[in-house]
Amino acid sequence: MSRAHNFSAGPATLPEPVLRQAQQEMLEWHGAGASIVELSHRGPEFLQVAAQAEADLRTLLSIPSDYAVLFLSGGATMLQALLPLNFAAPGQAADYVLSGHWGKTAIKQARPCVAANIAASSEAGGFRDLPARDAWQLSDGAAYVHITANETIHGVEFREVPDVGGVPLFADFSSSIASEPLDISRFGVVYGGAQKNLGPVGISFAIVRRDLLGRQGQPRAEILDYRAHAAKESMLNTPPTWNWYLLGLTVKWMLDEGGVAEFARRNARKAAALYAAIDGSDGYYRNEVSPAVRSRMNVPFFLHDAALDKAFLEEARAAGLIGLKGHRALGGMRASIYNAMPEAGVQALVDFMGDFRTRHG
Amino acid sequence: MSRAHNFSAGPATLPEPVLRQAQQEMLEWHGAGASIVELSHRGPEFLQVAAQAEADLRTLLSIPSDYAVLFLSGGATMLQALLPLNFAAPGQAADYVLSGHWGKTAIKQARPCVAANIAASSEAGGFRDLPARDAWQLSDGAAYVHITANETIHGVEFREVPDVGGVPLFADFSSSIASEPLDISRFGVVYGGAQKNLGPVGISFAIVRRDLLGRQGQPRAEILDYRAHAAKESMLNTPPTWNWYLLGLTVKWMLDEGGVAEFARRNARKAAALYAAIDGSDGYYRNEVSPAVRSRMNVPFFLHDAALDKAFLEEARAAGLIGLKGHRALGGMRASIYNAMPEAGVQALVDFMGDFRTRHG
Repeated sequence: MSRAHNFSAGPATLPEPVLRQAQQEMLEWHGAGASIVELSHRGPEFLQVAAQAEADLRTLLSIPSDYAVLFLSGGATMLQALLPLNFAAPGQAADYVLSGHWGKTAIKQARPCVAANIAASSEAGGFRDLPARDAWQLSDGAAYVHITANETIHGVEFREVPDVGGVPLFADFSSSIASEPLDISRFGVVYGGAQKNLGPVGISFAIVRRDLLGRQGQPRAEILDYRAHAAKESMLNTPPTWNWYLLGLTVKWMLDEGGVAEFARRNARKAAALYAAIDGSDGYYRNEVSPAVRSRMNVPFFLHDAALDKAFLEEARAAGLIGLKGHRALGGMRASIYNAMPEAGVQALVDFMGDFRTRHG
Repeated sequence: MSRAHNFSAGPATLPEPVLRQAQQEMLEWHGAGASIVELSHRGPEFLQVAAQAEADLRTLLSIPSDYAVLFLSGGATMLQALLPLNFAAPGQAADYVLSGHWGKTAIKQARPCVAANIAASSEAGGFRDLPARDAWQLSDGAAYVHITANETIHGVEFREVPDVGGVPLFADFSSSIASEPLDISRFGVVYGGAQKNLGPVGISFAIVRRDLLGRQGQPRAEILDYRAHAAKESMLNTPPTWNWYLLGLTVKWMLDEGGVAEFARRNARKAAALYAAIDGSDGYYRNEVSPAVRSRMNVPFFLHDAALDKAFLEEARAAGLIGLKGHRALGGMRASIYNAMPEAGVQALVDFMGDFRTRHG
């Protein structure tokens, strides 16, 4: 096949112009005599690439100047392990709002180093809704409150930034960063893996309010220390340079396309079209998430008869639609429709779902 | 310019056939409808790439079956921080042999979590030699003994595996893995960043004797736990898939070229030619490392007059030779001549050094 519409949840589809540029520059970057993947991270070429990526990300996300931007190895899971080490004192409490699989992971990674309090959970309802803010049981003296802004597997999303008073709000934005305008100043830390909505796999980002870097945290190696990374502009050691470069190309592409305001419009149209196809199928397809908190990025859905799943996936692939298999935790299907998924891709999926129903209904 | 000979210490030159294949497959991998960088790490395509890379690395390095092979995010510095967390009890001693900059980094990362004992050091002599084995002061009951097999900056290299009795020997092989045959069974852990001699930046490897994974270590998040990574075959979370893929292509290339025995011969010839050019220059160029422990991979050298450094670097670049600037810790020049550096590249450097001396002598 040629390039398909790829609904994978992450690693995920990238803009074709970004891949074409990376392809063109694979053997030599801008007359440097070598590929960017071969050049020293301390040389002028990569320093330029790195600085431009940060500047463009600051523009794209309107990041205030009192926030540091870190580009780090590892994914969101690694960042989750580092949050208490960097921002909580030994034995201090931290509040976690549990709204799906990734919220659970965040708690699991934090537990060895913090008194992780589950301030609220929607697990009893199968993570089909978000815990109402007025039922959250926040701790006195918590180091931070942690939320998962968008749950990639369960397909639920905070549509408003919750008010947690003066305690810093930390949020995993792996799957929804840059999908719409966001007021970063409402957060202490916004972090995530890049491989869903911000670029390639193999690099993560952390946007940290600088005053929080003054917290002592807990004994830890320098390489696990955000302050040390910030002081060295994410070049404390050799960073994942190629991944950083591809992230930069992706961010530049987003700016060229019109920025987060434009992607918010496209994403709203894409999500509306797909949910309408599901909701309008007379139960042939179903999404079980409470409509008010449905994710605009990740749309899990089920066929009315799981015996049809295999045929659905096979015929979808034949129609040029891949990456639709649901996460093993839920089964069924999932369509991830990040910024790099064009509206035509969603329309092709909607059309296919209609055709499939007609043929197998 | 077109592609130059790139002597960068890491990220470093990659085999051109590897880059060409990555270029060709950038928009679509083997009919999958997407680039490998866009495909799920849990899908059949990437699982095949990952398994093949491990199998090929096991073949290339003759890794015994009682060793786990981990592919991890972050570089050697991150692995250094994880060694005591995984393999030392709280308060236990670990012995470190200090032979250069990277040995220092290893100790620095370990210190917060282990009683790091400097068993021997060549710092007083400017790291121009290795501490003689019979002068090492090993601790009773040490969790492990750590060495840096090859010091990328100072250009010294262990030419024999030191005998440390029954204590597991841990070694940072970032810059010399796969450069010659190695008896892995002499080590507890062999680890490193891939970006010098094993492939691209953005991924690291750890070859761990499986019985050591039974050690309790210290409280740590799951993502910092080697046992958890081993149990999930390095897919505990989303791994740096593209980097893993490029590592696999590089390892396959090494096998196709004749494996480590062949690279040992080439590397010996390359190092001999370059050191001969330095030693035979009547002091115009000099390398200060004790000849018996000179690195075959990283050759630091100085011009007799540092005022010529700028001209040397500029004229080298004009001659298609890049990445020769020495590390800021030492100044001068450094030529890294890893497996992917062809003998013709070293010959071109040797020729240039002779020409430069003639013109500026």
